[in-house]
Amino acid sequence: MTRIDALNRIAKRLRMYSMKMTTASASGHPTTCLSMAEIAAALFFGEMRFNPADPEDWGNDELVLSKGHAAPILWAAYAEAGIVPADTLLDLRKISSVLEGHPTPRMPWIKAATGSLGQGLSVGAGMAAAMRLGRSPARVFVVMGDGECAEGSVWEAANSGANLKLKNLCAIVDVNRLGQSSPTMHQRDAAAYARKFKAFGWDAVVIDGHKIEAVLAALKAAGTKGLPTAIVAKTIKGKGVSFLEDLNGWHGRPLKADELEKALEELGPIPDIESKKYLRPARQVVRRKMKTAARIDRTRYTEKTATRLAYGYALCAAGKANESIVAIDGDVKNSTYADKFFEAFPDRSFQSFIAEQNMIGMGLGFAAKGYVPFMATFAAFLSRAHDQIRMAAYSFSNIKVCGSHVGVSIGEDGGSQMGLEDIGMFRSIPGAVVLYPSDAVCAEACVEAAAREKGIFYIRTTRPATPILYPTEEDFPIGGSKVLRKGSNDVATIVAAGITLHEALKAYEILKAEGIEVRVVDAYSIQPIDKDGLLGAAAETRGRMVVVEDHYAGGGLGDAVASALAGKTDIKHLCVREIPRSGKPEELLDRFGISARRIVEAVKSF
Amino acid sequence: MTRIDALNRIAKRLRMYSMKMTTASASGHPTTCLSMAEIAAALFFGEMRFNPADPEDWGNDELVLSKGHAAPILWAAYAEAGIVPADTLLDLRKISSVLEGHPTPRMPWIKAATGSLGQGLSVGAGMAAAMRLGRSPARVFVVMGDGECAEGSVWEAANSGANLKLKNLCAIVDVNRLGQSSPTMHQRDAAAYARKFKAFGWDAVVIDGHKIEAVLAALKAAGTKGLPTAIVAKTIKGKGVSFLEDLNGWHGRPLKADELEKALEELGPIPDIESKKYLRPARQVVRRKMKTAARIDRTRYTEKTATRLAYGYALCAAGKANESIVAIDGDVKNSTYADKFFEAFPDRSFQSFIAEQNMIGMGLGFAAKGYVPFMATFAAFLSRAHDQIRMAAYSFSNIKVCGSHVGVSIGEDGGSQMGLEDIGMFRSIPGAVVLYPSDAVCAEACVEAAAREKGIFYIRTTRPATPILYPTEEDFPIGGSKVLRKGSNDVATIVAAGITLHEALKAYEILKAEGIEVRVVDAYSIQPIDKDGLLGAAAETRGRMVVVEDHYAGGGLGDAVASALAGKTDIKHLCVREIPRSGKPEELLDRFGISARRIVEAVKSF
Repeated sequence: MTRIDALNRIAKRLRMYSMKMTTASASGHPTTCLSMAEIAAALFFGEMRFNPADPEDWGNDELVLSKGHAAPILWAAYAEAGIVPADTLLDLRKISSVLEGHPTPRMPWIKAATGSLGQGLSVGAGMAAAMRLGRSPARVFVVMGDGECAEGSVWEAANSGANLKLKNLCAIVDVNRLGQSSPTMHQRDAAAYARKFKAFGWDAVVIDGHKIEAVLAALKAAGTKGLPTAIVAKTIKGKGVSFLEDLNGWHGRPLKADELEKALEELGPIPDIESKKYLRPARQVVRRKMKTAARIDRTRYTEKTATRLAYGYALCAAGKANESIVAIDGDVKNSTYADKFFEAFPDRSFQSFIAEQNMIGMGLGFAAKGYVPFMATFAAFLSRAHDQIRMAAYSFSNIKVCGSHVGVSIGEDGGSQMGLEDIGMFRSIPGAVVLYPSDAVCAEACVEAAAREKGIFYIRTTRPATPILYPTEEDFPIGGSKVLRKGSNDVATIVAAGITLHEALKAYEILKAEGIEVRVVDAYSIQPIDKDGLLGAAAETRGRMVVVEDHYAGGGLGDAVASALAGKTDIKHLCVREIPRSGKPEELLDRFGISARRIVEAVKSF
Repeated sequence: MTRIDALNRIAKRLRMYSMKMTTASASGHPTTCLSMAEIAAALFFGEMRFNPADPEDWGNDELVLSKGHAAPILWAAYAEAGIVPADTLLDLRKISSVLEGHPTPRMPWIKAATGSLGQGLSVGAGMAAAMRLGRSPARVFVVMGDGECAEGSVWEAANSGANLKLKNLCAIVDVNRLGQSSPTMHQRDAAAYARKFKAFGWDAVVIDGHKIEAVLAALKAAGTKGLPTAIVAKTIKGKGVSFLEDLNGWHGRPLKADELEKALEELGPIPDIESKKYLRPARQVVRRKMKTAARIDRTRYTEKTATRLAYGYALCAAGKANESIVAIDGDVKNSTYADKFFEAFPDRSFQSFIAEQNMIGMGLGFAAKGYVPFMATFAAFLSRAHDQIRMAAYSFSNIKVCGSHVGVSIGEDGGSQMGLEDIGMFRSIPGAVVLYPSDAVCAEACVEAAAREKGIFYIRTTRPATPILYPTEEDFPIGGSKVLRKGSNDVATIVAAGITLHEALKAYEILKAEGIEVRVVDAYSIQPIDKDGLLGAAAETRGRMVVVEDHYAGGGLGDAVASALAGKTDIKHLCVREIPRSGKPEELLDRFGISARRIVEAVKSF
């Protein structure tokens, strides 16, 4: 039997499985699986090289199923490869199964969760760049839908693929004409996708996606021109089953039992083929052991320093201690001070230009290949990548994000540049660590913690220079807080972080001069929050607390404290409650209610 | 004097102002103003037609400065046009001035805030579509930077421009080569931008952006081929001042006093020209008065109905009552049920395909022209448009957003499809109204309120069908809540909304059977929250409260209640605290701690 015959047989088996699985789970997307059956067969059993015994083998080609709703055919392909037990396929979407409705790394061969469309190509670009950095000759294949090409993130990733000349990156666009609710933008005009990819600097070719020979040839040729390649595959949604082919209304709809029977009858007996025989042997590549040290050499600060600048220094120190750290920028590295790392480690520095979604998406790809990516931009613009950050959680990823220029304290640039919702955005992610340093020493400790511990970290930095509060070697445990001022008769606790902590310290002095004692707590760890420490402080200060933050009311430090202390404390929450505007930082802090003067008022109002 | 001579003089004046203004404010971006001086002069005094006495004149051409950091030259142009008093220009960025660091509608000629790059083209596309819908022959000009063309949202908007054949939409890309921290992706390769726009279905032309004749000719020709047009203008950052031209490091940096003096000396005496004389007369167009009724005809529901379906019916009813309502979809209209509106009002329905950023961005454009846009997608995917939603606040916009398929109750599709952070995202916007209906009647009331009241509204709908709780004509005031169950000896209050309210009602029955009385409150208005109502309920139920929501811990109903009631109530918060997975809705509700059983446990634990 020729490989072509074999792959055609495998494609048919994948079709059958996809329909059976979705009928068994009474939900899912069979027809989008059917359109990519030949693509899946050719990838798994004709082109990709991987070690089926080890999903972490450094020589493995990687596959990202960006059109994540086609998960059933992916699981079926892994079953054909002998990686997933075939008899578990019908557990699709069960709470007990790792074969979820959309791919997640609960199944170990999945390196990044998909299902929010248009994100896979950035992940693939990150993986491809990681492979090149780590001297792997392996390749990355990203299977995309035609509908998802409407997502701008696809074109951000296309830019990066071309800029970085990622010839080891290959996108396959499954042009099956139909979206969820209606035909796609370009319908059967496959050339339109090729034209776009070419304009973005890619090699691109249009093929018949149901012709195994054509798919194989295109996969083999991909990258040979030294460019990332888009294979635009003309396909038919529901291909192979007469009453499903090219019909609207079958997007997220499994076949009923009798429909399934009819479909399987049309396809004939299940082809007999030992698919595993057609797997291509893995490359023999061993990944170089990376140098990693747990500690960084901290800078000694003597003068007022912006926490964003300390972030830059610390990132550099971390990069020296740990060779697996990489940095990705969105053309603001001279403001976030990631430029320190870019200067010191140009090989591990990647420019995403003004494309925050792709910056985070590429980070997911680097993390998937074992690197520790640090991404920084203005906190306000991280909202652009909220969906990618959200998906990082479903990927159980290890990304480190820094948001600079937070709050009204940036001053004259105005509201559009002020990060005022970023704490809320990251607090909504279960398990994400949210750190908000108030001085340069703490900022360095936060970077060190992010580099050392696994998981999603967010570090919030401030634009203006602020005084140094701590000795160089101070420890800042995650989930801790620091009592900075404490008297024998404190009438309230002021909880703050970042710029407002310095306002709180000023308020302390003003109140002290009037004979009023207050406690001042630095809540540098916003998630997890130091519940016990705060409860203790509140209990010792007449159950009264003022929480003050340069952030909007919803989702920030105030909410974190109120939730942790519900029912135990009388809390006054000072935060930005209106739409801010341009002005001097100190004017804005006062106008929007978070200055020392406002804190003093709040304490006195108890 | 020829118009060309005049415009060159005006361009020089705009350059001088831009530098003086930023030096006066000691912050801002003069060099990016200098690169677009001829573009600004040609637009304002050569091509655009508008009534300088009325920013709302329906015949006005509109200008969106997508590269918002060039605000100074925009303000200077309005001063030259006699719209802004010239003597206020030096108040740039002062807290007392509407001339902010980036444009906002505090200055009445600005229709949408800019400053988060890459968003202006979607706003422009929305405006252009709105003009066509409202029979205005006017045009929309969007001035973009080359750096911001890296943002995917630009290409989402480009797709919509082409799909909708918006020949009244003209983008001008100011290719000045330099980004904030480094040269742009394509540097001087202006043809690369033209190639991309052409591949996306636009007419595109490359010109010398400092040649007034070329700019005028391109602006005049734009749209004549029946397509949206991109004018790719080759320019020099810092143009006109020898020590600023084409130099890195001058992005967000004003000139010092002596540098300014030197620059002005180079430019020579300020040209004498009465710019206002060159304004083009406005078109005489009167906008047809739209039909709007305050009330919609509500559907009478008798059977279990999903709130998302009720959203669809109500949107239709609202569309009938109010001709200014439009709907924009992201290819999920058969799931959000916006398809009801699409069928009833095809002329007022717009397909953004799978491009959520552009969906919201176009909505901002429609709202800017007086329409009332409703946009719906899966709540999870609204995170994709977080930055556009954020910018809606700075635009003081009137957009209405619906997020469907919220929480683990969607079941088998898995985490990537579950909206679990959406309440937090909208709660972080000051003034945004966040509504979460628990039955079809309330869902209709929410749509009615959103259609009737000005401002940013978010309506959260549920996938599964849920029982009807209210009579058809029930009122649901914004900021209210409903007590659904109440006894004479309630031991706690259960606060819930959406699917968990139905779990709370089940818990009530279970507890009642055991002789335990609880109060059940429907918190349909999450922002503003019914603080007094909840405080009252808590006070009457031994100060105990269980808040239960199908949302992550951070930023949702629990935070809203904890913040509102800080110190007054002992709150147990049931919510999704882990990364969820595929499974049956009822299994997931229980596994992740928000089922009736879990509520019963929580009540008993007091």
